[in-house]
Amino acid sequence: MNAKKTPPVAPVSGTVVPRYAGPATFCRLPELRDVPYCDVAILGIPFDAGTSYRPGARFGPQAIRQASRHLRTNFHPDYGTEPYQTIQAADAGDVGCNPFNIEEAIGQIETAAGELFSRADGIISLGGDHTIALPLLRAVNKKFGPVALVHFDAHLDTWDTYFGAPYTHGTPFRRAAEEGLFLDGASMHVGIRGPLYSRDDLARDRELGFKVIHCDELEEKGAASIAKRIAERVGDNPLYLSIDIDVLDPSHAPGTGTPEVAGLSSRELLNILRGLQDCKLVAADVVEVAPAYDHAELTSLAAATIAFEMLNIFARQKSPSEKRP
Amino acid sequence: MNAKKTPPVAPVSGTVVPRYAGPATFCRLPELRDVPYCDVAILGIPFDAGTSYRPGARFGPQAIRQASRHLRTNFHPDYGTEPYQTIQAADAGDVGCNPFNIEEAIGQIETAAGELFSRADGIISLGGDHTIALPLLRAVNKKFGPVALVHFDAHLDTWDTYFGAPYTHGTPFRRAAEEGLFLDGASMHVGIRGPLYSRDDLARDRELGFKVIHCDELEEKGAASIAKRIAERVGDNPLYLSIDIDVLDPSHAPGTGTPEVAGLSSRELLNILRGLQDCKLVAADVVEVAPAYDHAELTSLAAATIAFEMLNIFARQKSPSEKRP
Amino acid sequence: MNAKKTPPVAPVSGTVVPRYAGPATFCRLPELRDVPYCDVAILGIPFDAGTSYRPGARFGPQAIRQASRHLRTNFHPDYGTEPYQTIQAADAGDVGCNPFNIEEAIGQIETAAGELFSRADGIISLGGDHTIALPLLRAVNKKFGPVALVHFDAHLDTWDTYFGAPYTHGTPFRRAAEEGLFLDGASMHVGIRGPLYSRDDLARDRELGFKVIHCDELEEKGAASIAKRIAERVGDNPLYLSIDIDVLDPSHAPGTGTPEVAGLSSRELLNILRGLQDCKLVAADVVEVAPAYDHAELTSLAAATIAFEMLNIFARQKSPSEKRP
Amino acid sequence: MNAKKTPPVAPVSGTVVPRYAGPATFCRLPELRDVPYCDVAILGIPFDAGTSYRPGARFGPQAIRQASRHLRTNFHPDYGTEPYQTIQAADAGDVGCNPFNIEEAIGQIETAAGELFSRADGIISLGGDHTIALPLLRAVNKKFGPVALVHFDAHLDTWDTYFGAPYTHGTPFRRAAEEGLFLDGASMHVGIRGPLYSRDDLARDRELGFKVIHCDELEEKGAASIAKRIAERVGDNPLYLSIDIDVLDPSHAPGTGTPEVAGLSSRELLNILRGLQDCKLVAADVVEVAPAYDHAELTSLAAATIAFEMLNIFARQKSPSEKRP
Amino acid sequence: MNAKKTPPVAPVSGTVVPRYAGPATFCRLPELRDVPYCDVAILGIPFDAGTSYRPGARFGPQAIRQASRHLRTNFHPDYGTEPYQTIQAADAGDVGCNPFNIEEAIGQIETAAGELFSRADGIISLGGDHTIALPLLRAVNKKFGPVALVHFDAHLDTWDTYFGAPYTHGTPFRRAAEEGLFLDGASMHVGIRGPLYSRDDLARDRELGFKVIHCDELEEKGAASIAKRIAERVGDNPLYLSIDIDVLDPSHAPGTGTPEVAGLSSRELLNILRGLQDCKLVAADVVEVAPAYDHAELTSLAAATIAFEMLNIFARQKSPSEKRP
Amino acid sequence: MNAKKTPPVAPVSGTVVPRYAGPATFCRLPELRDVPYCDVAILGIPFDAGTSYRPGARFGPQAIRQASRHLRTNFHPDYGTEPYQTIQAADAGDVGCNPFNIEEAIGQIETAAGELFSRADGIISLGGDHTIALPLLRAVNKKFGPVALVHFDAHLDTWDTYFGAPYTHGTPFRRAAEEGLFLDGASMHVGIRGPLYSRDDLARDRELGFKVIHCDELEEKGAASIAKRIAERVGDNPLYLSIDIDVLDPSHAPGTGTPEVAGLSSRELLNILRGLQDCKLVAADVVEVAPAYDHAELTSLAAATIAFEMLNIFARQKSPSEKRP
Repeated sequence: MNAKKTPPVAPVSGTVVPRYAGPATFCRLPELRDVPYCDVAILGIPFDAGTSYRPGARFGPQAIRQASRHLRTNFHPDYGTEPYQTIQAADAGDVGCNPFNIEEAIGQIETAAGELFSRADGIISLGGDHTIALPLLRAVNKKFGPVALVHFDAHLDTWDTYFGAPYTHGTPFRRAAEEGLFLDGASMHVGIRGPLYSRDDLARDRELGFKVIHCDELEEKGAASIAKRIAERVGDNPLYLSIDIDVLDPSHAPGTGTPEVAGLSSRELLNILRGLQDCKLVAADVVEVAPAYDHAELTSLAAATIAFEMLNIFARQKSPSEKRP
Repeated sequence: MNAKKTPPVAPVSGTVVPRYAGPATFCRLPELRDVPYCDVAILGIPFDAGTSYRPGARFGPQAIRQASRHLRTNFHPDYGTEPYQTIQAADAGDVGCNPFNIEEAIGQIETAAGELFSRADGIISLGGDHTIALPLLRAVNKKFGPVALVHFDAHLDTWDTYFGAPYTHGTPFRRAAEEGLFLDGASMHVGIRGPLYSRDDLARDRELGFKVIHCDELEEKGAASIAKRIAERVGDNPLYLSIDIDVLDPSHAPGTGTPEVAGLSSRELLNILRGLQDCKLVAADVVEVAPAYDHAELTSLAAATIAFEMLNIFARQKSPSEKRP
Repeated sequence: MNAKKTPPVAPVSGTVVPRYAGPATFCRLPELRDVPYCDVAILGIPFDAGTSYRPGARFGPQAIRQASRHLRTNFHPDYGTEPYQTIQAADAGDVGCNPFNIEEAIGQIETAAGELFSRADGIISLGGDHTIALPLLRAVNKKFGPVALVHFDAHLDTWDTYFGAPYTHGTPFRRAAEEGLFLDGASMHVGIRGPLYSRDDLARDRELGFKVIHCDELEEKGAASIAKRIAERVGDNPLYLSIDIDVLDPSHAPGTGTPEVAGLSSRELLNILRGLQDCKLVAADVVEVAPAYDHAELTSLAAATIAFEMLNIFARQKSPSEKRP
Repeated sequence: MNAKKTPPVAPVSGTVVPRYAGPATFCRLPELRDVPYCDVAILGIPFDAGTSYRPGARFGPQAIRQASRHLRTNFHPDYGTEPYQTIQAADAGDVGCNPFNIEEAIGQIETAAGELFSRADGIISLGGDHTIALPLLRAVNKKFGPVALVHFDAHLDTWDTYFGAPYTHGTPFRRAAEEGLFLDGASMHVGIRGPLYSRDDLARDRELGFKVIHCDELEEKGAASIAKRIAERVGDNPLYLSIDIDVLDPSHAPGTGTPEVAGLSSRELLNILRGLQDCKLVAADVVEVAPAYDHAELTSLAAATIAFEMLNIFARQKSPSEKRP
Repeated sequence: MNAKKTPPVAPVSGTVVPRYAGPATFCRLPELRDVPYCDVAILGIPFDAGTSYRPGARFGPQAIRQASRHLRTNFHPDYGTEPYQTIQAADAGDVGCNPFNIEEAIGQIETAAGELFSRADGIISLGGDHTIALPLLRAVNKKFGPVALVHFDAHLDTWDTYFGAPYTHGTPFRRAAEEGLFLDGASMHVGIRGPLYSRDDLARDRELGFKVIHCDELEEKGAASIAKRIAERVGDNPLYLSIDIDVLDPSHAPGTGTPEVAGLSSRELLNILRGLQDCKLVAADVVEVAPAYDHAELTSLAAATIAFEMLNIFARQKSPSEKRP
Repeated sequence: MNAKKTPPVAPVSGTVVPRYAGPATFCRLPELRDVPYCDVAILGIPFDAGTSYRPGARFGPQAIRQASRHLRTNFHPDYGTEPYQTIQAADAGDVGCNPFNIEEAIGQIETAAGELFSRADGIISLGGDHTIALPLLRAVNKKFGPVALVHFDAHLDTWDTYFGAPYTHGTPFRRAAEEGLFLDGASMHVGIRGPLYSRDDLARDRELGFKVIHCDELEEKGAASIAKRIAERVGDNPLYLSIDIDVLDPSHAPGTGTPEVAGLSSRELLNILRGLQDCKLVAADVVEVAPAYDHAELTSLAAATIAFEMLNIFARQKSPSEKRP
């Protein structure tokens, strides 16, 4: 593809237009319509009708984009990457979802993601509540088949229904399992903690094909060791990363709907992600940022940083010869 | 009814248990199960799936109850009432509504309100978003027939559908009109302001039977004159009061989903309500308190005060001989 | 007194040291120890053990001083005064009060104010909760005899006891009446509103010698007319002004312990104060600023502005020939 | 100009994409590059190095755009306008200003506004601090000659220098007077209040050609009468509207750098603006929104509403036959 | 006791009534009057007159109960417990304490706790400031004799008096030592850190019978090792757990009166508690939650989680055969 | 010098005047003018015109002083010091800096620090943004010659220029290197993390003479080991400590201008500082506290604690025979 030979369109430099000014896209990246090709698209999915406790993740995408202005992004020493020189990233805007009809919204998201995959090799989605992982996984499957699913979360999200509703933010991975959207032997939950709905939750979860890394294991074993276990389980499979921001401790991410104390620090989470840098990432989401409960952009900055780390994992794949840091 | 001859069960005194302590019911009133009869029941309806912009009114009832602890309530000089000696008020708890299915939730609310009307003469509902006014009006109609509807709001809430959804917080009074739930010649919107979806909104609204008092008229004519106009239009009809907290200016009620600047002050609103003290109130709601956007209980205290004023209108009806202040 | 012939020591100029820098005294005034004489002393009284609902007024004095940095203060066109050229004002620091023993604290405040009156002609106190008005009135009486007491507040503060405690923020003016500290025919409450503890509260209050201007009268009659009524009642008597910040509407003063909706705007309050500019002010307080509930210095800035207006009333007395604006 | 015959490109409908989703432009308007012609351009000027007290207005433009999502904007009954059908409005993005060099930034703003005037008939600027009014007035003068300047503010902003700096947010209109950028007999300050730097401030201000409407006059005379006085003074001259958000009371606009109590309510301000709807507006700014001090978008929503009212004044000029409401 | 044979009354299910709705009791447990017997009672003690710095813990109990709605509570995998099937827990409401008289309040608390112990086997108290630990320990002693006291706190709380007051939140354990309320060889402070009032504080503390685990030891030795040391010192003695929320780092618990940086993370604290799960817990408190300083329920959620962990320690005692996780 | 023989003037005791009352100096220390000699002066530098992202550090000094009221300070067990008995510390007030002219402000700071060094042996500066480190290092050099510079920060701050400006908060240490103000072989950055402006940043930084300790090394090696490495590199050289509060994780220090996730906890930072207690500290700064973004004094309390730890390092030097804890 000749078009791909042109160097990527990069964001405006922070030395020409201050970072608090200029485009409101993620990291001030070009809009999708402004690039001739796209390696990774950022997609906003402002949807929160699947929320069981504190709503407001519908404002997540705008808050994450605003917080991404903070980031200095030319060179990432932990990945050895210069993402704007290596890959063409672009902001694909938001999916317009019906706020009053969960099933229609799921259809809209699946359609939008499917269409976007025809233009972009990879997608990083900004939620929105965790409901959106299901239609995203469906679209991913159409392109890549079943994927390794690595899910960072305080909660399993594999419950069956809430109030009779099959599609909520507590159920996407049960549905995904039923639809065979991920690879049994290559998928994990990371960061799970706290009480459960029933004594059988964990057993049922295992039957769906998941392995669980409990949050406490981090304290004992450290991020590097955890990352290694995850990377080994994922192997060479195409990887879908789904990060519920509540995997972080509420002190690091107060702006979310169902906070759970005793969670990961942002340093632990980033260190695990950096340990996954040679995985074959094909799509990812960061969800459950509810800005009304945030303070001083703590949560949205964490989410923006996570999304940017994901961008660097994509960038690494395009420059595999690059010596690791 | 002999039972009614016993004096009402009053809240615990603030001189025995400090107001910040003790029961979490509205104004620390007895629970419904603790009273032999009930003149007015307070009903929480924590539901916000009908919200078009900032969600969170599901936390409204608890926040209003908590703010009601502030109120000193034995004697209200503006009504000449001692409500706890005149009527039996009680807190009926919350309706359990399905957060994922608007139509099911509407049914649950209608049922709960209907059952409550078999135990209580009047109901003051604490929302929740404005969607809840429809099932409440349905239950009211079953008991009282069509009522005068006086609706305080920045917005008309008579739109047809949002995203195809007929039941949302922007449509209850269109549905109510279609179902004939209120009296054409006795109903009004008060406090309407700001831009509209189309040039025809106001005309269509009139066709539904409403008269509009625009927010600006307050500045020119004053609360007393506005109250008089409303009271005359309501006349002797049974009255349903529906108060969207966003009728207040955002400076007085920041904690709401669709704030609109240039609104009423709380003093203006209370003065209008006090001018309606001899109306035949049968039910009322105060809705759209979204605590995540509130500060220092500003909005929830306004809502609690409004609900307490409603209680005094009820109390006045039970003591009509009482000389007006 | 020759010493008084030296021109007053003025605050450092905002054109030399930015207002957000420099001394942390009220309006960056000199400390009391730095002036050869003192017309008006500012006294902090960080005490809140008399609070019945939301505590925190112990942090009031520091917050008001910090907010006073906002004020541009050389010339006040509404008084025609240049206070720093006319009078010597100084910050006398804080009274150290026992936070665990109300009666001991009252004694400490009375002693401190008494000693300060030997150095300063007038005192403006920054509270602290309203309990402090009692010892201040005692000290004022020792110097001036009974005074006209004009009390701005949402509440009467003439209750008898709370939980058996005679000295709390709800009782200072009952105690003051019992001790004969103010002039019956020259005293008023302004801004009273809301429900009461009992039907007799107002009658009992009248027996203590007070006249009440209800908050609603402002809407009908305007600030100028209200000010005139107050000034006439005060007459030539020495005046003690006591301003509970909750006389303002919670939208103007959220940072207080017992907010009551439907209050005064800050514009209304300042306009009344300006109408009292030719009264013979001898002492004043502004109380009940609870910074933990404030936002963006809204409340503390209102209090600082009020204290500065008081300073200008003092300044007017020293330059009576000055033509009124 | 044939191009102008095509109907304006309108924002995406809120019934297709929820208002909290989609473009981050002002009112989700098209970007300037997406329209064939432009009647009114919205220009962000994120600059606050001229601030004397609380900084942060550099984040104003993004916050105002985000808050503009709240607005329902198809038909404005107070103007009788359907702005998206009458005029082509577009968002021109932000000026990239040097944050460390005030004079260079002023030059960048003047250049950017000048270039924008070659593409757009009118400009509404979103500040940034009030320093930006000077380069904007310079650019306006190059196109329209001296203009009537109507300036809403708590402060005069006609001081000479601060710390030796001639260009700050307290001096733009002194510089503008020296450069002859506005019409002496047609210009006003509206909303001025509070103490001053010196007894001569007002006299000196008058010498510069300004008339002052003090904030208190509003209380006595009402918005309609004030608007009439302004409109008469402006007459048929081209009008530049400059609105410092601190003209509003801090309760209505806490998120600003130099709040001053006792200000206008948003209702008063909007009513004045609506009284100016037949003036010949050529350019406007709304400045001094400092989001770090805002709460629940109170201030940014006020600013967004003001900017949208300005848009409707522009729209009225394009449809003069439209019957006034 | 036959009554005990009935299965416990459990909270309403979150799948019938959403967790943000329904009873305002701790974890929506039944009220004490609604259960035939009670293994563990939750007791609110809204008292903060013993506070030396930031007051406001009087609002702690309500805030902790509200935050407890977040908790999913049927099965706790870290304890292997299903508490609602094993023990009867109930909410006993609040003690009404005199806010103006510390000694009277202490008496009221001791009386209330004593009476409650006649109905309930164990008590978990929600403070309130730390003053309340003294009357609670007195009541505990009447039932159990001297207990092992394990006290988590940033501060020793064994000072003698403050301002002459013997009963404040800084002195309860000095008084408790003087009254012989705890076992010398089985008691500890955990999490102590920061500067002290004098060089002798630690020595004097040791004389009272305490052992101190400094906060830094956690970093070196880890939670499991610390828990082991505590459990060994406690042995088989009846255990009183007293947890001042300021033992957590201010980033984890900002909403408290005397925060001290460099504290425990919530993960560290929970891991220690889980290591104490086989201790013979007889009563516990969690104190010093001051909601006015909290953000997004960070602190109250931590406190609610801690109280729920305590509930599970009680539950473990009732099901000792349960295999440990 | 005989004067030095008098015991130091200590702050007022917290048992006489509650810590929330009394002087607004750092830790309520005496003002510089009140002490006959001065070992360590605290200097406020309210300047933030060099800020590239969120401004507001001009309010840092007052916020840090206010937060220092929290500290109990008589004896620090981690240093074995009783600072108020060992050294004379005093608060030297604020430097008045030009907010509109960076170069003039730098000159003012250098002059003020130089003059202060003629009265005080050591200086602890409270920023302000990091720009101020340059003039402080210049003044330090005049007294001590080149120093070991240990710089805690998330960012290198050795960039060349921003927008052509050589003096900003991102460039002080580049300028300092060019001017030879620190010792190449004895200086370090600690806590660096996150993406960079370019691949060469780190290499260029090394050329300036710095060694970098990346934030992640803490997780692996622990604070004690890091402190040892720093202390060894510093050796016996005079030490300048510069602590940008953003070296802390945003959860520990949200109130800063350019937060970067994955940072140090306050416990880690304090433990490193305690490991430097035998270094020859001659001057220090703690910068970049932006209170508008803070919550519940989290950030300003961390900064106040850091400044107090610095005071104890100074105190240790005066009592070297003191046995280490």
